[in-house]
Amino acid sequence: MELEILQTPTLVHDLKINCHRLNQSIAKLADIGALPEGGIQRLAFSDEDLEARAVIQHRMIAAGMKVSVDAAGNLIGHYPGQYLDAPALATGSHIDSVPAGGIYDGTYGVLAGVEAVQTLYDNNIRLAHPVEIIVFADEESTMIGSKAMSGQVLLDTDFDVSGTAIQAKLKRVGGSWNNLSSAQQTTHDFAAFVELHIEQGPVLEAAGNPIGLVTGIVGQRRYSITIDGNASHAGTTPMSMRQDALVAASQIALAVHKIGHAKDIGGEQVATVGSLELKPNVANTIPGRVEMTVDMRDLSNHCLDRMFEMLEEALDTIATDTQTRIQIHPKLRNEPAPVNSHIHHTIATVCSHLGLDTHPLPSRASHDAQNIARITDMGMIFVPSQAGLSHAADEYTSPEHCAQGANVLLHTLIQLDQHYRCRLDQQ
Amino acid sequence: MELEILQTPTLVHDLKINCHRLNQSIAKLADIGALPEGGIQRLAFSDEDLEARAVIQHRMIAAGMKVSVDAAGNLIGHYPGQYLDAPALATGSHIDSVPAGGIYDGTYGVLAGVEAVQTLYDNNIRLAHPVEIIVFADEESTMIGSKAMSGQVLLDTDFDVSGTAIQAKLKRVGGSWNNLSSAQQTTHDFAAFVELHIEQGPVLEAAGNPIGLVTGIVGQRRYSITIDGNASHAGTTPMSMRQDALVAASQIALAVHKIGHAKDIGGEQVATVGSLELKPNVANTIPGRVEMTVDMRDLSNHCLDRMFEMLEEALDTIATDTQTRIQIHPKLRNEPAPVNSHIHHTIATVCSHLGLDTHPLPSRASHDAQNIARITDMGMIFVPSQAGLSHAADEYTSPEHCAQGANVLLHTLIQLDQHYRCRLDQQ
Repeated sequence: MELEILQTPTLVHDLKINCHRLNQSIAKLADIGALPEGGIQRLAFSDEDLEARAVIQHRMIAAGMKVSVDAAGNLIGHYPGQYLDAPALATGSHIDSVPAGGIYDGTYGVLAGVEAVQTLYDNNIRLAHPVEIIVFADEESTMIGSKAMSGQVLLDTDFDVSGTAIQAKLKRVGGSWNNLSSAQQTTHDFAAFVELHIEQGPVLEAAGNPIGLVTGIVGQRRYSITIDGNASHAGTTPMSMRQDALVAASQIALAVHKIGHAKDIGGEQVATVGSLELKPNVANTIPGRVEMTVDMRDLSNHCLDRMFEMLEEALDTIATDTQTRIQIHPKLRNEPAPVNSHIHHTIATVCSHLGLDTHPLPSRASHDAQNIARITDMGMIFVPSQAGLSHAADEYTSPEHCAQGANVLLHTLIQLDQHYRCRLDQQ
Repeated sequence: MELEILQTPTLVHDLKINCHRLNQSIAKLADIGALPEGGIQRLAFSDEDLEARAVIQHRMIAAGMKVSVDAAGNLIGHYPGQYLDAPALATGSHIDSVPAGGIYDGTYGVLAGVEAVQTLYDNNIRLAHPVEIIVFADEESTMIGSKAMSGQVLLDTDFDVSGTAIQAKLKRVGGSWNNLSSAQQTTHDFAAFVELHIEQGPVLEAAGNPIGLVTGIVGQRRYSITIDGNASHAGTTPMSMRQDALVAASQIALAVHKIGHAKDIGGEQVATVGSLELKPNVANTIPGRVEMTVDMRDLSNHCLDRMFEMLEEALDTIATDTQTRIQIHPKLRNEPAPVNSHIHHTIATVCSHLGLDTHPLPSRASHDAQNIARITDMGMIFVPSQAGLSHAADEYTSPEHCAQGANVLLHTLIQLDQHYRCRLDQQ
């Protein structure tokens, strides 16, 4: 079959993905790992993951793509471009889920990418660049797929499971722990990467806008804090003789909340105490020990540094005031990932052409795109999540929003193809 | 053997308990249920409880007492008085322990009582009143012994175990669930009750005084509080759109602490959040639900009422400020038990005669005495707990303090015998 050679954007101005087909494919994939109470459980490398990969592979082939799996277990659909050796315009996300997760998280971005290529294929359109749809391996836990692809050092300690176990698991999906470095891509392999994803937050719904223009993926720092007081009797210990670890922990939780709200930091940051455990945790004993987590996110490392300084100052004051011993340990550090300004502008222009209102916002969740941003220009598109819910059976994005996001992805790829083709012509 | 008839207090002015024998008996009982890491585990109705009861019974008989067990499982040693039908001067405590408890809690008071009677017996002294040493059943859990003796209604819901189980357990120590009401004593059965106990708090040690003059046993009210917020994503939910149940819980914990410190309530109250649990309690999710306990204690119901009012006001404000739903439920209510002023004065006078400094303080822990106070005049004597520790292997009271407390108990019983004998002479 001959594929049409695309000359100008105007030729494809009215191109639209097939809304019905897209939402059917979302529904079909939702059957794999479906839970009786709704939602799905499709853990990376599980039987359900394998089954879903097979379905995606079938869809990719039907859309004119060649399919391969790299050593990191990434499933890659390659839709050839006019320039056979040109770097790819890539999109993709993941199809693995958290335990008891939702049916849109990750999966939607993969299926919308396949649908976009299917639309090109159905219309006999071949772009200058190849288009690649990437199903990244194990986004929800190790991010081994996008980390290996972006050449990040993978330590056994990055994994929930032992190194041996990840080897066996990788094999299940066609990967190879021993050849992991072969999965690494470079700046020459991709022209750009765009990830389409549900927002997983309430901002777009509250703003009433169908498309989120992601301004960057936040850096994340996680700490554990341990507070040691004195677990004495809640009756017999006078108030003045207490070293109550929970009083200290409560002051810390409120200090963290205040840091999240501080206007002088930037106003886009978030800070959360999500986990907190008392010992001995009984009604008639003063808490002697508290272990808690602090999670802080912002687009700027400068702001994250400032937030940590404020936290340390608060801990010093609280330790003195409550006569407790407070220790803080770093547990996780993800660097902020900037969005490429041209891609950001392109998405905005496409939305304007399509008559879709947009809302700029940072991505405060982790995505494979933050890793791929290390090796190529990166952009992200969000669609609304009903009530901001994600990682839950109630996760929902309407069929209209799903179709709108897929159309934005399709036309963004087309526009980026035009933008980057000048580089190809110069070669 | 003829027993001397005591005519005046001066005859027994120099009477002293046997310090060595007392501390040996404490050490001997500490072997029963001893844990490898120190301390004891001697749960009520367990084999260890039975073994310890047998040892006490043997000691009682050797001290000239008749021993009986009532339907509530209370082990009672009766040392006859000159007036055979006179109400008893009673003392006692418990020998059951919490899991991994200390060797002094309860046991010390029982053994000191036995030692006091042994001292009378060794010196051929018989008081006007009978003296009774009571080993109350299951102080650490149901308080079935002192509750049944004071005629309180016992519901199955009072127990950790089912009604059937408590029946079987009672049988083990010679009690009878079906005849429980026969254990009830009245105001005619006792002239007075004095409990000697370790402080289980740090006040006496800090004050440097060997004897605590208990001013009353505090009332206790316990509540459970449930806070419902919204368990959304710690990254994707902007600070302004959060309903963070832990932020509310932290404000509540600090409000409770402030109520405990409030000078305008009385200054003797304590208020504690001892237990607090988050859901889902993971680092990257905003806490959606918190369940926590509040424990408040004071000698006065008026103060406890005021503390609860202050708590309710705080909860209202916090619910509004944090946009959470807060519910509070009463879980436990123990009424304050006043100490009889004459007994209090007698203990103080005895200490003065013995050259022992005293420190007045409320008992903020529960004791069998609070139940027995319903049917007779009640007083309590405390001895210091090292570092305020109790319910732990490190629980410690020095042999000197143990002996001092036992001597105070002995002479308090002798003085009370003089005080109350006028009633007997009038009959």
